[in-house]
Amino acid sequence: MSERNIYLETILPEEAVSLAKHALKREPLMDTETLPTHLAAGRVTVEPIYARYSSPTFHAAAMDGIAVLSASTFAAREDQPLELSHGDGFLFVNTGNPLPEGMDAVIMIENVVQKDEVTVHIDSPAFPWQHVRRIGEDIVATELLISQNRELTPADIGALLSAGIYEIKVREKVRATFLPTGDEVMNFLDKPEPKAGQVIESNSQVFKAYADSWGIEATWAEPTPDDEDALRAAVMKGLADGNHIVIVGAGSSAGSKDYSKKVFKSIGTVLVHGISIMPGKPTLVAISDERSGYPGRLLVGAPGYPVSAIICHEKILGPIAHWLMGKSVPDRREVDITLARKTPSKPGMREAIRLAAGRIGDRIIGAPMARGAGMITTMTKAQAVTFIPRESEGVEQGETVRAELMVPESDLDRVLIHVGSHDNTLDLLANELMGLEKNPLRLVSSHAGSMGGLTALKAGSALFAGAHLFDPESGDFNFPFIDRYLPNMDVTVINLAIRHQGLIVAKGNPLDIQGVDDLTREDVLFINRQRGAGTRILLDHHLKQADINPRDVQGYENEEFTHMAVAVNVLTGAASCGLGIYAAAQALDIDFVPLAHERYDLVIPTSHLQEERIQTLLATIRSDEVKTKISTLGGYETDLTGQEMKPGVGLG
Amino acid sequence: MSERNIYLETILPEEAVSLAKHALKREPLMDTETLPTHLAAGRVTVEPIYARYSSPTFHAAAMDGIAVLSASTFAAREDQPLELSHGDGFLFVNTGNPLPEGMDAVIMIENVVQKDEVTVHIDSPAFPWQHVRRIGEDIVATELLISQNRELTPADIGALLSAGIYEIKVREKVRATFLPTGDEVMNFLDKPEPKAGQVIESNSQVFKAYADSWGIEATWAEPTPDDEDALRAAVMKGLADGNHIVIVGAGSSAGSKDYSKKVFKSIGTVLVHGISIMPGKPTLVAISDERSGYPGRLLVGAPGYPVSAIICHEKILGPIAHWLMGKSVPDRREVDITLARKTPSKPGMREAIRLAAGRIGDRIIGAPMARGAGMITTMTKAQAVTFIPRESEGVEQGETVRAELMVPESDLDRVLIHVGSHDNTLDLLANELMGLEKNPLRLVSSHAGSMGGLTALKAGSALFAGAHLFDPESGDFNFPFIDRYLPNMDVTVINLAIRHQGLIVAKGNPLDIQGVDDLTREDVLFINRQRGAGTRILLDHHLKQADINPRDVQGYENEEFTHMAVAVNVLTGAASCGLGIYAAAQALDIDFVPLAHERYDLVIPTSHLQEERIQTLLATIRSDEVKTKISTLGGYETDLTGQEMKPGVGLG
Repeated sequence: MSERNIYLETILPEEAVSLAKHALKREPLMDTETLPTHLAAGRVTVEPIYARYSSPTFHAAAMDGIAVLSASTFAAREDQPLELSHGDGFLFVNTGNPLPEGMDAVIMIENVVQKDEVTVHIDSPAFPWQHVRRIGEDIVATELLISQNRELTPADIGALLSAGIYEIKVREKVRATFLPTGDEVMNFLDKPEPKAGQVIESNSQVFKAYADSWGIEATWAEPTPDDEDALRAAVMKGLADGNHIVIVGAGSSAGSKDYSKKVFKSIGTVLVHGISIMPGKPTLVAISDERSGYPGRLLVGAPGYPVSAIICHEKILGPIAHWLMGKSVPDRREVDITLARKTPSKPGMREAIRLAAGRIGDRIIGAPMARGAGMITTMTKAQAVTFIPRESEGVEQGETVRAELMVPESDLDRVLIHVGSHDNTLDLLANELMGLEKNPLRLVSSHAGSMGGLTALKAGSALFAGAHLFDPESGDFNFPFIDRYLPNMDVTVINLAIRHQGLIVAKGNPLDIQGVDDLTREDVLFINRQRGAGTRILLDHHLKQADINPRDVQGYENEEFTHMAVAVNVLTGAASCGLGIYAAAQALDIDFVPLAHERYDLVIPTSHLQEERIQTLLATIRSDEVKTKISTLGGYETDLTGQEMKPGVGLG
Repeated sequence: MSERNIYLETILPEEAVSLAKHALKREPLMDTETLPTHLAAGRVTVEPIYARYSSPTFHAAAMDGIAVLSASTFAAREDQPLELSHGDGFLFVNTGNPLPEGMDAVIMIENVVQKDEVTVHIDSPAFPWQHVRRIGEDIVATELLISQNRELTPADIGALLSAGIYEIKVREKVRATFLPTGDEVMNFLDKPEPKAGQVIESNSQVFKAYADSWGIEATWAEPTPDDEDALRAAVMKGLADGNHIVIVGAGSSAGSKDYSKKVFKSIGTVLVHGISIMPGKPTLVAISDERSGYPGRLLVGAPGYPVSAIICHEKILGPIAHWLMGKSVPDRREVDITLARKTPSKPGMREAIRLAAGRIGDRIIGAPMARGAGMITTMTKAQAVTFIPRESEGVEQGETVRAELMVPESDLDRVLIHVGSHDNTLDLLANELMGLEKNPLRLVSSHAGSMGGLTALKAGSALFAGAHLFDPESGDFNFPFIDRYLPNMDVTVINLAIRHQGLIVAKGNPLDIQGVDDLTREDVLFINRQRGAGTRILLDHHLKQADINPRDVQGYENEEFTHMAVAVNVLTGAASCGLGIYAAAQALDIDFVPLAHERYDLVIPTSHLQEERIQTLLATIRSDEVKTKISTLGGYETDLTGQEMKPGVGLG
């Protein structure tokens, strides 16, 4: 077994940032440059700027109207208007015109009665300097206009140019380079088609997109193989290229091929190895020394998992880079979010929980998403992220937490929180709703099974629930369950589609599985759905009808949460078959043995029915275009789609 | 008198945006383009994106450790460790490695006891798929990865590349051009030195900076003279150049040279002329028609005053441009701010009040700044802006309003809110405090006079107050007034400087003004400070000593709020003289007749004294460097600077 790294004691990200700030010397590290003022927005000043000219540089009319000498108007009364002559008593002026010599006030054109081309009447006096912008009103020449260390805003650019400042000395941009590493990592520029064991490199581009948004000059290199000398050479080149920051992607963990720490130690001092936040833990922070030839620069080992890397960028790299430039870190808006599910967390680590969040009534509800550090899609689908403190063991369902919004707050009104059974038509709907031209909606689905959806409605943590619960006694769908579990809630039930459930089997059905009777065979390994899933209830119904004891089904205790996950198990050989919808089998090009038709309905609290989001959802479901698209998926019938269901109808 | 425009009925900005959205046809107007995915951050998708590859594309180790077949480990117990052999029972794996054939679980290296090179012991069983990222765990090939109309985030770029999406179809960027107008307007690129009547053009660059931050492609033209045909030609060129939006700067008001509306009417339909927000009212919104050759594009007349133009950009142009690109308008953080002063507002217009805001205790206090539409420096100095509703007559002192932050919220903890007397050393201090390397502070001064400062302390709306109140009876400064007006507040008084007050007179003192006795002369026009200003109290004291009735001083009733404003009056001949500090006369290179020395102190509630901001302020005042800089200003003595004052000491 080869040598492995040992984590230093992990510290909180803000402590890591503080250590780095203390170790870096900003002044010699960051140079200054002189730019034309109009190209300097977003840059940071390094010296105070004093106004060269006043603004205005002259007394100016602040309104369209006539310029007068106020003292000459004091006799004007409503019952005794005063007559003034052009060129003598008054002159026409437009906003911004210099006040003519000898005049000290402007009367708005609306308050002037024009008698003829050269004569006007006014019926009230003007007071001195009325509607006049006096010289220096905004800016007085020589005054301090912009202090040092100011991040220049658009308005600042306007003020600087107005005061005659045409060039300005600012801090240079931070330059940073990202070095992906790993033998298995393929350069995305080659448009690779990855085989088992291969990964498409993308972390460099996530970094680059962050860097662009921060206003830093970012580059990246081709992937470096897992080789200590190659990595050292790449880091040294990054420094030699003039970067203030060199980031090594992956290789900062404790694995046998993780060389970042060794390399950093050979050319600098490691300040931090491991931060107590999950994802994000295997983050390295170091400062280069004389041995590198470029001392005093920042070296960062970013974790390889995409979500960990993002946390490292947001909590470590971003704050340090902003500080180097003299900028404030832009802060995300924070809101209170009520958690839709109990969320345990490991004490000793701060944990980032991504939330699918939307407004329901007067609360914002957040459904915790998968937590894996490798789940980049959680970052693309979440609206918010909450951090469970290091000392906490987690958050209860219904508890309210403070969360950072990853989207504008108004987006929360455009989120439809669905909790319930998973169906592929929901993905189709999600895309249609995002495609609406005027007010696109984001459909967020939490796959909790049909029963989980009804429970969420009861708790007020879902806007609507998708359910396909078959009641063998009545032959009806959903209503018997609604009566039992939501006795006090007035709900409206709308059919989304009739769908075909069946056994998803490998391509060509090599084990020749024909029905539930085959599930007891010794050579058949089943993959089940979770408790409370309508599909599992359907399976149990069929097993009961066939008089099969679930214990005799191999794999009955292995659970997945979605049809697609079941299909993936079959595709990869992890299971021989599972119960699921036709669309899932079709999507992965494997086979399907039909078993039953069932009604997949949307259960909507009637109190939400008039909401614009729900009305838009229903209009979308009812459009012919969407019905056609559902049919095209295969395995669906749309005879009832969009119709309100009543108890006792079954499949109609 | 030439023809003038008449305002249409003004409407609220959000109504104007809505009118524009309804009149524009986004789909034919905005084209699409295909970009390499890694260059598409911030762009908006125009079609759904489905994953090409799964992620991971294989079962992968999720931890560094050993890969095993779980079933072979079920016998491991703490008191009965299980021995496994390399190559047979286990294989070493690093995070991300493909799971070896026949293995279905990973045991973390921390839980493995290594006996020798090829033998390990484990003391608990592995369950199936433990620490394994299964194929498709994050992304399943064929699934909807990113919907249409999605503004691509850094994480999205990562997800897309991971799923093998190397190119992506997005909406093109909005292209907009800004056309400054006006005979008086000078191109900043020529680095002009403006004479009376001339203005340096800067609005195009404020627009450009906004546009860059919005991600739109912005250009601008040289200033167009006040000529209808020239303006029409410039607008037509803007359209012919492929811009979706053409903005005319200034000329949208009702002045006789305001041609924008005429030009827009000749090639399109004017939707909005005048929005009911101040500043910002003279905003024009129009849509081009067939006569322009480029129908269906947006024409905007932006007001000429800089603050009005900014409101137009933020409330009209920004929302429409974002909508054209399919993006959400980034929302500013909103906070509750307590107003430090009564703020009346004209009903019928929504009014933007810029606030100098900072945290004091557990509240955020905001001092309303000057409201003029021409005051661009209010936008560079404010931390927040609140909008007084159209139907409101204003806000009382101490009332709390909702305000948009123009800076990150954490900046509010770095703002020192000073209310009180104005002194030029405060500008010097402001710059020094912003220059601190570790935690720069922003000193915000509200010029309310010495008495106004004490009142603000009483109301809790200032962190400290600058005062130079002379009490003729005792010969002492400030303490007699503190005893009278803040009887229940424990304050600490720190001297900032001793300063020279005197009569500020024109260069060369042409009227030969030598003292207060000259103020009663018929040929002398005085400019006074506002009631409650220490300088005014000093004047009254000297007038009383000289037995002069204020009524005999011509101009006594004309008030200014700062020393610099008084000096500007003298510089421009609006007054012959005024009482003020030497530094103000020196800054404008005019003359000064000394009258008295006085103590300028900072009055700090003792409860704030230990705050880091105050400690930093005091340390800065006490540094030799700052004392030297104060001396260099001229007209100051620093014998007492930084020392705590006690009652009865006078000038020490």
